[in-house]
This record gives sequence, C-alpha cells and structure tokens, in this order.
Amino acid sequence: MKEEVFFGEGMVNVKKDYPDLYEAIVGLNEAIYTGKVLDYRTQKLIALGINAASADKRATEKQMMSAMKEFSITKDEIVDVLRVVLLTSGMPPFTKAMKILYDLED
Amino acid sequence: MKEEVFFGEGMVNVKKDYPDLYEAIVGLNEAIYTGKVLDYRTQKLIALGINAASADKRATEKQMMSAMKEFSITKDEIVDVLRVVLLTSGMPPFTKAMKILYDLED
Amino acid sequence: MKEEVFFGEGMVNVKKDYPDLYEAIVGLNEAIYTGKVLDYRTQKLIALGINAASADKRATEKQMMSAMKEFSITKDEIVDVLRVVLLTSGMPPFTKAMKILYDLED
Amino acid sequence: MKEEVFFGEGMVNVKKDYPDLYEAIVGLNEAIYTGKVLDYRTQKLIALGINAASADKRATEKQMMSAMKEFSITKDEIVDVLRVVLLTSGMPPFTKAMKILYDLED
Amino acid sequence: MKEEVFFGEGMVNVKKDYPDLYEAIVGLNEAIYTGKVLDYRTQKLIALGINAASADKRATEKQMMSAMKEFSITKDEIVDVLRVVLLTSGMPPFTKAMKILYDLED
Amino acid sequence: MKEEVFFGEGMVNVKKDYPDLYEAIVGLNEAIYTGKVLDYRTQKLIALGINAASADKRATEKQMMSAMKEFSITKDEIVDVLRVVLLTSGMPPFTKAMKILYDLED
Repeated sequence: MKEEVFFGEGMVNVKKDYPDLYEAIVGLNEAIYTGKVLDYRTQKLIALGINAASADKRATEKQMMSAMKEFSITKDEIVDVLRVVLLTSGMPPFTKAMKILYDLED
Repeated sequence: MKEEVFFGEGMVNVKKDYPDLYEAIVGLNEAIYTGKVLDYRTQKLIALGINAASADKRATEKQMMSAMKEFSITKDEIVDVLRVVLLTSGMPPFTKAMKILYDLED
Repeated sequence: MKEEVFFGEGMVNVKKDYPDLYEAIVGLNEAIYTGKVLDYRTQKLIALGINAASADKRATEKQMMSAMKEFSITKDEIVDVLRVVLLTSGMPPFTKAMKILYDLED
Repeated sequence: MKEEVFFGEGMVNVKKDYPDLYEAIVGLNEAIYTGKVLDYRTQKLIALGINAASADKRATEKQMMSAMKEFSITKDEIVDVLRVVLLTSGMPPFTKAMKILYDLED
Repeated sequence: MKEEVFFGEGMVNVKKDYPDLYEAIVGLNEAIYTGKVLDYRTQKLIALGINAASADKRATEKQMMSAMKEFSITKDEIVDVLRVVLLTSGMPPFTKAMKILYDLED
Repeated sequence: MKEEVFFGEGMVNVKKDYPDLYEAIVGLNEAIYTGKVLDYRTQKLIALGINAASADKRATEKQMMSAMKEFSITKDEIVDVLRVVLLTSGMPPFTKAMKILYDLED
C-alpha cells in the first residue's frame, strides 16, 4: 500500500516506460520508510517539512494530501511542521505552505 | 532552557549588540517550539531534516549535537531522518550528513 | 501600516487561528524593518533581490507589487536589482523575474 | 577598478587560461554594476543579501570584505542586510552570516 | 541562430528597453556555448539537468522544448538526464520534470 | 566497479550499519547509470554540473576527482561544464567550482 500512497501519477508512466528505474525507486522507497526506529508517520512529517522548506508548491501539496488522507495527520500538526519551516527557511516558504494548506481545506 | 539549546555562539553577539533583534528571535523561537500538537522532540527531528536537506554543514552539525545532547535523540533516529533526506533531496546532502554524524560519534 | 504592507492574505488566517505565531511574526517583522542604518526602502530592494534569486514566483510577485505600490519603487530600480540577480544567480531566475515584472506592468 | 573589486583570485586563472570567458564576464559585470538608477553601493548590499541568503560561506565572506574595504559599508549596515536575510531565509543563513561578520571583525 | 534558440520571450523586452544588458547577455551566451571541447548538444543536456534539479518548472520546460526542437534530443535522452537528477536531487524535482516531459509529449 | 567509483568513504559505514539502505542505494545507482541512450561519461558530466550549480564544495570536489580519475575527463571538459553553471547559476557557484578545479590540479 505504501507505494500507492507515495507515488503520484507521474510514476505510472515511469512504471510503464522505464521499469528498471521504477523498480529501483520502489526499492529505495521501501528502504526509506522502513526506518529502524522512527515510525512512518513521523517520517512523513519530516518529508513534509523538507518539501515545504524548498518552497516547491507541487511537492508540498502532494505531501499534505497524502499526510491528511493516509495518515490522518491534522491541520494543527501540519502547522506545527510549518512553524519549523518558518524558523529554518523564512517567510516565503512558510506563507506559501500556509496558503496551500488553507486551499486544501476548502 | 530552550533558548540555550537553540541558540549557538553567534547569538551571544546579537544579544549584546542588537538587543531588539535578539528579543524578536527569542519571541519567534518560543512561538515555533510551543507547537499546538507536535512535541518539541519531533519538531527538532524536522528541523534536523530540513537543515540536512539544504546540505548546510554548519547547521546540520549544530542540530545533530543539540538533538543528541538535549533530547537524547539516538544515532538510529537521526539515520531515519537522513533516509528521508536521501529520498527528498538526493545523495550529496545524504552522504554529507552521514559523514557529519559519524564524525560526531568519534 | 508596515504590517499591512508586509503581510499577504495568508497571514489573515494565521492571525485568526494561530495568534501566538502571528504575534511572533509581527515582532520579527518590526525588528527586521527598523534597521539601525539602512532605510526601509533599501531593505525592500534587498528582500526583492533575495526572493527573485530564489526563483520563487509567488514571493517575487508579492515583493514587486508591494515595492511599487507602497514605496513607489520604479521599474528601472527593479531591473537594477535584477541585474544583480543575473550575476549572482544566473539566467533562469533573472528571466523569470523579468517576465513577472513585465506582466505586472500590463 | 571595479574589476579588481569584483573578481576574486579564481578569476586570475580564468583570465589566463580562458580569455574568451573572462571577457564575457567582464562585459556582464560592467552591465550589472552600471545600473540605470540604483548606485553601485546599493547593488553591492543586494548582492551581499543574496549571497548570505544562499548560506554560501565563501561568497558571503568575499562580499563582506569587498563591501567593507571598497565601499566603507559599515557593520551596522551589513547587519541591516542580514535582518532581511533572517526574515526571508531563516535562522541558519542568518547565524552563519553573523558569525562570518564577527570573525571578519576580529 | 543560437540566440533565438537560447533566449525566450522575456529577452525581447530586455533587448528593447535595456540594450546594454542585452548585449552583455549575448556576449556571455556566446562564451558559454562555444566551449573548448564539449559540443553544444552536450552542454544543453547539462543545462537541462541543472534546471530540472532546481525544480524550476518554467526553466525546465523551456530547456526541454529547446532541446527537442533545436537539437532533436529524444525523450529517452532526457530521461537519462533525469535519472541523474533523481540521484543528485531527489524525488520531487525528478517527478516534477517527468510530468513536464510527458505533458510536453501530449 | 561502478560502485567503487560512485560511493565515497561515507558509504562504507552505511554498508556496515544499514545494509538495507545500502542495497537500495546500490540498486538506485545501477538504474541511474545504466541509462538507455546516454553513456555513463555524459551522465557524469551532468552530475558534475548539478553538484557545482548547488555550490556544494564537498560534492563538487568528489565528482571532479571521480571524473578525472575514472573517466579521464579533462580540465577543459570540466570548464565547459562550468560555463553552463555560470550561465544557469551565477558567479558564486562558478568561481567556487573553478577554485576547486585549480586546487585539485596542484
């Protein structure tokens, strides 16, 4: 199931046209999210923070949707992630991510 | 105590020479790490992930030291953070952060 | 007034739902733009340069609008900022920002 | 004179071994720092802000040295630039640049 | 011809309103793409890789279109570039660039 | 052999302590550098360009050493890569990479 959660639409094409690459990504993904000690949910929060910090709208949106749908991560939890984004990465990525979050809510 | 944990040496000068700026940073820091729902420890893991993802040696080193000293965050927990860094940000920030981690251990 | 200038729509939600965070951001903003020696207008030009250099369309657009509306910063002044962006950050952020500038003009 | 100010040691090798590239960079540099309306000093402050925001130690250090030596830009002026860096880019580039500034002072 | 290939719409305005800057960019562009040993096609692949790695949608799209139209660079060649992007820069820029590539194909 | 070329010292520790992660990285690496159409050498040039563009000293240095040792990539070829870095990413990463290149030569 993890794969469906993780991979967006773009990966459908990779699977069809570049199966060797797809297999490697699946293998990598398995190794990432079978951490030794942190649970998958915490790792998703970290991924969300990293994506939001890079001010990448598309990646942030996808992570937020996956976080809320698959892990029942709440809006307040996401805001707590974005607090860290504000401190480490400044206002532009913070306000961009806040806007994405509120737009998703509507 | 949070302030001592958070602020590095550089902030001593800010406090002395630019007290208005220092006060604002203290206020910001308080608002960041008094999240509504996530605990401080989880927020530190997120900050660590963001810093490592940006391949900033100095910031990553400081976050790792603070994480291990003040929160007893273990090496395996940090590696689980770095797994996410590998997936979201690629090999160079991952190997750089792994090297910092092993150097700190010695 | 500075707050209205500075804060975009996203901040309205922060103020309503996360007042502690909002207060900290207001405090930070005050400390940033009450510099000791540089005037506010020069600091806005610097913020504009940093945002354009990071190739963040949303942040660049907002800074340009605020710069032109609130500080009567001219198109030629913005282009002089973007010259520095070209030298320090390359063609993609430069051409992106030039396009934003000309689109705003229309 | 502008060229000596602008170009670091690395450019000596470019001039010797890749004169075509060197000429293009000189031409670019002339076009950047002969802005239409902003003076050279203001453009240097913007370049300093962009370099510090990218957390690039080497580039930040060079810009600070050039700013102080060639333009008599003061420490307080640089801190006012770094205030903007803090707001737009977060704590890690801010504290890194503050440390560089204080180390240069000593 | 190289100029038409290289410069997007935004440069039309630069040429008209800021001819000095335009000339410097043309000179720079000439010096970049008249490499000593690598051919222009290989340099375009490198530029494509750098733009995709920075997750800049607009720049990546432009580079891909120019690569396919002017240099008959194939989809499989671009995917081989994006493999390197995945390894060096992680999943978000990789999946973003893959989506741009497949959207361009349609 | 590709693995020895690719992986730096840091990976020795990953192999020993986190074999699952190591296996995934090996698998990924195989999928990256067995491109369909571009040869390995060209992909290395692209990786070098991406690393230099991100102004990451450690990663740039490693890529340059690997490029020169394992693929007999010449100094002039690397400079042709760095020309593209200058155009896409500006002076600071360009001059930093040029300095690394000349330091390696000595």
